Amino acid sequence: MKDQYHFPLENFITKERFDRIKAFAKDKETPCLIIDLDIIRKNYEDLRKNLPFAKIFYAVKANPDDAVVSLLRDLGSNFDVATRYELDQLLRLGISPDRMSFGNTIKKEKDIAYFYEKGVRLYVTDSITDLDKLSRAAPGSKVFFRLLTEGLGADWPLSKKFGSHPDLARQLIKTAVRFGLEPYGISFHPGSQQRDVGQWSTALTTVSQLFTWARDDLKVNLKMINMGGGFPANYIEPTDSLAQYADDIKRFLDNGFKNDWPEEIIIEPGRSMAGDSGVIVSEIINIAKKSVHERYPWVFLDVGKFGGLIETLDEAIKYPIYFEGEGPAVDVILAGPTCDSMDILYEKTTYMMPESARIGDRVYILTTGAYTQSYSSIYFNGFPPLKSYILK
Amino acid sequence: MKDQYHFPLENFITKERFDRIKAFAKDKETPCLIIDLDIIRKNYEDLRKNLPFAKIFYAVKANPDDAVVSLLRDLGSNFDVATRYELDQLLRLGISPDRMSFGNTIKKEKDIAYFYEKGVRLYVTDSITDLDKLSRAAPGSKVFFRLLTEGLGADWPLSKKFGSHPDLARQLIKTAVRFGLEPYGISFHPGSQQRDVGQWSTALTTVSQLFTWARDDLKVNLKMINMGGGFPANYIEPTDSLAQYADDIKRFLDNGFKNDWPEEIIIEPGRSMAGDSGVIVSEIINIAKKSVHERYPWVFLDVGKFGGLIETLDEAIKYPIYFEGEGPAVDVILAGPTCDSMDILYEKTTYMMPESARIGDRVYILTTGAYTQSYSSIYFNGFPPLKSYILK
Repeated sequence: MKDQYHFPLENFITKERFDRIKAFAKDKETPCLIIDLDIIRKNYEDLRKNLPFAKIFYAVKANPDDAVVSLLRDLGSNFDVATRYELDQLLRLGISPDRMSFGNTIKKEKDIAYFYEKGVRLYVTDSITDLDKLSRAAPGSKVFFRLLTEGLGADWPLSKKFGSHPDLARQLIKTAVRFGLEPYGISFHPGSQQRDVGQWSTALTTVSQLFTWARDDLKVNLKMINMGGGFPANYIEPTDSLAQYADDIKRFLDNGFKNDWPEEIIIEPGRSMAGDSGVIVSEIINIAKKSVHERYPWVFLDVGKFGGLIETLDEAIKYPIYFEGEGPAVDVILAGPTCDSMDILYEKTTYMMPESARIGDRVYILTTGAYTQSYSSIYFNGFPPLKSYILK
Repeated sequence: MKDQYHFPLENFITKERFDRIKAFAKDKETPCLIIDLDIIRKNYEDLRKNLPFAKIFYAVKANPDDAVVSLLRDLGSNFDVATRYELDQLLRLGISPDRMSFGNTIKKEKDIAYFYEKGVRLYVTDSITDLDKLSRAAPGSKVFFRLLTEGLGADWPLSKKFGSHPDLARQLIKTAVRFGLEPYGISFHPGSQQRDVGQWSTALTTVSQLFTWARDDLKVNLKMINMGGGFPANYIEPTDSLAQYADDIKRFLDNGFKNDWPEEIIIEPGRSMAGDSGVIVSEIINIAKKSVHERYPWVFLDVGKFGGLIETLDEAIKYPIYFEGEGPAVDVILAGPTCDSMDILYEKTTYMMPESARIGDRVYILTTGAYTQSYSSIYFNGFPPLKSYILK
């Protein structure tokens, strides 16, 4: 007899809070996402406490719900903005443009002009062609240069899509000066859900060398480090505590900058801010076998890859999943409700379901507050996008 | 010097038609999808001509645009329906329920009841638990049994998500009788964009054996074969002609059934009906290098995996892509506009871009009429879903 859970529920959520969510969702149609704002408040405070030297720019894309953004506005957060659509949302919510950065390296010139017109003066860049647009559309603005990091050890890995190698970063700094922009800092991203804190050590070592080069060779005083996101949420794979991450990162900064840390240190949490705040409430549609004797039954849920769980691609993100009922459990394969054969959640990762579970039972997918609802397809197979509620 | 294209444009679209689409899209904001209904009409007629013995059930999920569905309604098509949301759409468009099947093996009992109440009497199944629901919610209906096929050779491969092995199919047929349902036929799906026609041979061999078993051992006369979809659209990887597929499939049917073919043969084309009808019009946002000397520049388009091109996952579907301009071309990496590092279109597959291409140029992604627009995320990174237009 195996237990259905890899870890006790308390690793992810208190029993009291879970019971409140279940009660709140009781009369709601499934699937739906329930967001608990108290958790976001707590995560914001934990980040402030553990990294008091860092300015928080919340990565809006992680969960752009108005209620989430408004709460973080009131808590004093700044915002990492990916598109003009997000900019419009933030302005509508009364957030001042000096609390924003345009954090996407891929920008149309007309979108840069739009950000500039609205008052945003802080931009990421990673290419000469992008600097060229910035020089015309956002003259005199602060720019920071994103380094290429590959994010080994991250559950949602990076690629070579963003950033430049250090040699090109030197060129970009020189070019920014020539273009009348203000070279302001260096950014990197260690990879989302990065479980190897050593990645910050490697990146910060490169950053400190770039600060030295900029000062000594280019006569440019950089003032800022943007360490990106990457701090983990609580999925099934265990991670170190935020306090441990913070301690290590402080040491890496001391290694590189001694007592002369840069004026401004920015972090861009998304997953670590919003992930733990959400629970997707789903229902078992079917429990099926492919043969008369089948070791692993297929359990079909009413939410899948196209309804908000796209990060189960390659089983990258392993959400904690709780069924109703207790007692002896069996290994299962979990899949979504669409007619697409790739809409399978977990086939290789071991998930267990109590033998007593039945069709129609509710299923709770924890730590689904980030990178879920806004990824939903608009109507693939006719399914509407995942509905979300703020827990009251 | 290499040519930018793997194949001449005429493999995918006539120059005249392409020029019309470009002219129509000229004043439209990018990205957008342009659908040419004439192509869908032609594809429908080609399928009828080449497979005159087959009843067409269009797979609505491939492209659920009202204009597409209405055209196929007028041409006399039947419809493979995945969800009650699609059912509602088809009823709204005045399509009679006797022209529909509920083609998803994963169904809630209340959804079956909804289909039954609306008059649908043809249902797929692949498990005892699903039959149990059908017996209660759709009493006396025709059911067909989906076989498990794994779809080797398909560009968008199957998995073990759908269908049952033959031994279980026998049990399902017996159970259907016991439950008062009408065992009507056998279905399989060879895998989407299936380039190996031999897959139909393997599946039809199993189907013919099941017909024999049903008749001899179970005293059940099955009447229908549903051969699913799988017929290809024109992507970069070449495929046999539809005529060749049709010839081979007729021979496979003769092998299994001699002169006594089943009464009804159904196909469920989706990709082969709608794929070639669409062109996504996009724009180059940036052309960037990661190092001072970079062999393969990164070309960022304003459409990507979350804006309708999710089937570029693992570079499975290789769309023909045409740039403005001519002349010497370079190998490029193509990526989408979001802040997600996995939003890369093609990094391993060779795509070429004329050296003369510039930021702001338009880019045309052909054969994007199926499994694109309806997959778009609702607002990931704030981007709105892909807009689509019917070519006038």
